[in-house]
Order: sequence, then C-alpha cells, then structure tokens
Amino acid sequence: MQISELSRRSGVPVATIKYYLRENLLPKGEAVSATQARYTEDHLRRLRLVRALVEVAEVPLARIRPVLDTLDDPQTDLHTLLGTAIYTLSSAPEEPEDDPQWDRAQRQSSELLAKLGWRVTPASPARVRLTQALTAMERLGYPASEEMLRAYAAAAHRVAESDLDYIDPQAAREEALMCAVALSAFMEQTLTSLRRLAQEDESARRFGHGGHADGPSDRGAGAGNGDGGAADG
Amino acid sequence: MQISELSRRSGVPVATIKYYLRENLLPKGEAVSATQARYTEDHLRRLRLVRALVEVAEVPLARIRPVLDTLDDPQTDLHTLLGTAIYTLSSAPEEPEDDPQWDRAQRQSSELLAKLGWRVTPASPARVRLTQALTAMERLGYPASEEMLRAYAAAAHRVAESDLDYIDPQAAREEALMCAVALSAFMEQTLTSLRRLAQEDESARRFGHGGHADGPSDRGAGAGNGDGGAADG
Repeated sequence: MQISELSRRSGVPVATIKYYLRENLLPKGEAVSATQARYTEDHLRRLRLVRALVEVAEVPLARIRPVLDTLDDPQTDLHTLLGTAIYTLSSAPEEPEDDPQWDRAQRQSSELLAKLGWRVTPASPARVRLTQALTAMERLGYPASEEMLRAYAAAAHRVAESDLDYIDPQAAREEALMCAVALSAFMEQTLTSLRRLAQEDESARRFGHGGHADGPSDRGAGAGNGDGGAADG
Repeated sequence: MQISELSRRSGVPVATIKYYLRENLLPKGEAVSATQARYTEDHLRRLRLVRALVEVAEVPLARIRPVLDTLDDPQTDLHTLLGTAIYTLSSAPEEPEDDPQWDRAQRQSSELLAKLGWRVTPASPARVRLTQALTAMERLGYPASEEMLRAYAAAAHRVAESDLDYIDPQAAREEALMCAVALSAFMEQTLTSLRRLAQEDESARRFGHGGHADGPSDRGAGAGNGDGGAADG
C-alpha cells in the first residue's frame, strides 16, 4: 500500500508517519520509484504499536527505541518482551538517601513480595513506586498494615491474571505488546475508577443514611453485593 | 499553643499557616494580645487536614473550602463527608458529544454498575473516568469484556472493603476525612504498583524461560502463589 493508505488505515497523519520513518521507529517501505515506497501489513502493525506507545502510554520517543529493539530480537521470549515494555511505561521516582521512613517502607515491600513468592526482578520500577506510596502513608500517620497489603496484593494478582488471560501468546508479537500496553495504561484507569466507585458503595452500606449530597442511588440496596464480597484467602 | 508550636508540631511553616488563616482554611486562634493568638488541638488537626489536602491530594485551595464546609456542617453524615472529599479528589474529564464509542462505553459502565448493584450516584466523577478508559480500550481494538470487568470490579470491591475497615467511624471527623484522603491518594498508588508487580509475576509463570533481561528472581518459584490465586466467583 502507499503511504496515503497506511495513513488512512492507521489514522496516523502522513507527516507523522514520515517523522517516524526519519526517527527509525518505522522501517522504510520498498521503494517503487524515486518518490514512492510501498508498505505492508507489517508496517501497519508496527505503526499502530508506535502510535500506541507515543499517544497512549505517553512514552518519549527515546524510550521507544529499546522496546522496538527487544521486539525485533528473535531471541527475546514473550515474558522479556512484555517486561521491557512494562518497565518502559513505568517511571520510577528517585530513591532518597538517608531516609529511615523510606528504608522501613522498602523493607516492608521487599518482605511482602518475598512472602508472596512473586517472581519480580529487583530492578522493577513498580517496587520503587510501592515503597514511595508506603512511605507517604506512614508519613501521614496511616501506616499500611500487612493485612491490608495482603488484601491489596491478592486483588492485584487477580486482576493481573485476568490481564494475562487477555494477551494471546500466539498472536503476532506486535499485537501482544500493544495489548499489554493498552492493558497497562487503560485497565489501570479502569481499576482505580472502579475502586473509587466501590468505596462509595461500601461507604453507603456502612455509614450512609440515604443522605448523600447528590442522592445515592438505591438501586440494588439490600440485593447483596454481587461479585464484591469475595472473602480473603 | 502559640503559632510557632503549631508550626513545629504540624511541620507546616509559620508563613504557610498565616496564609491558610488569611484564606479562611484555618479558623483564627484566640487573641491573647494585639499580636499573639493561642491555638488548640482542634487547630492542629484542621491544619494537618488542610496540609494533606493541599500537598498530598494536590487539590487547589478553591476546591478545599467546600470540603471544609461539609466537615463543619453537623448535619452531614460520614458517608456524605467522605463522598464529598473523594469527589473533590477526582477530576473527571470532559464528556465528548456525538461520540458513538463513548456512548457505548457509557452504557457498558452503567450496565455493569447496575448488575453489580453498587450504590453510586450518577454524579460520581469515577463513572466518567471509567467510561473514558473503556472508550480508549475499544478505540485501540481491545474492548474490555464483561468477564474481565467483573474480575476487576470484584478486586476493586475487595480493596475498598479493606479501605473502609481502615477508617475509624468513631474518630474525630477530621481524622476520618484525612484517613480517607490518604487512602485515596496513596493506596491507589500501592494498588497500581502491586498490579504491575503481579503482572510481572504472572507473566514469568506463563511465558518465562528464566530469561528476563534483568534476571528474574527465583525466590518462591514453584512455591505456589500465596494470596494471589483467588478464584473468580
């Protein structure tokens, strides 16, 4: 296909495609004349992936290149590929020095992960973000208990299993990667939105007298809690 | 206590306390001379709350006033108070007009909440954020299935129950509110960090050949999954 069709089918403007070509984020097409090149379904898939990384995950171009290199390396297994992408998507905060609260929170997160037996690398940016959150809770005077963290971890793992079910290991690697990117970015927002809604529901059940400022919905009141009441293992 | 002690005990600089006093975010102290006022434990609690709202939740000052008004209204029950705070913390995106994908996602989220029987108001900003996330997934070609959303909802509700367990309904209302603010801001980050870590663990179990670029930890390999494997109802 010509670049115009590549643009139409991907929804990416021609000027942006040319920019990605110059930045080597998209391989060149097969030249058919001095001014024209022909593109394939492979280009379309790659273009959609780059677009997803740039727009969806808001990853700077400089950080996309290593992800694509990993993708193009046939030695890379799917776990490494997805891990590289997820690490790229996660920005970790700087770790402070000489901060006893930080050090305590770091021990707390390491011990939690060890007890859970999760296979995660020491380099995972999410570890640092976890430590940051636990430090902030303690600083505010509300340290997270192990019981609470275990409830969170169980919920997080359940969601992660559902995420991995959604990734087709037989699909083209670009597809699997793009799916992982989409899941990481937008299903995270789905989860945090549902948590806020669930907090509202649970608060209504415990503390409400039908008196929320905006008038709580009484739909489902007393109808039990659907999926929500899973007991902690 | 004098303003200097209030500053010391709260960790808030005197200049900032004076600014909060001018903005009526903190009630004036009892005047003991033309230039001095005396402050109480009530001031300290209120100051910590305002500070938490400003710094932790990054809420603009203009949006803090209605939260404090709700707090000071003795007619307000705890559910309304927490709801007001959570709504204030959540910024909802603009809803687009004439967008069939958005409308479909909105129906999908409303139907999900109705099926779950959750008591949430139509005004909840988290509904809009949920719709936005579902729209984005569909636009990328990865629509969220009902099965997946139910797994997410169950996990979110479990976490919300743990959150509500942490709020002491007998505590001073400022305390309960501050606890809710801390939970909303930082336990959200805890949850999203744990989800990334759980994805890494689950990916290692399914797709890994011990070949992660940074060398996966083998701690706990084969030791089962601790809390993570709760079956979906």
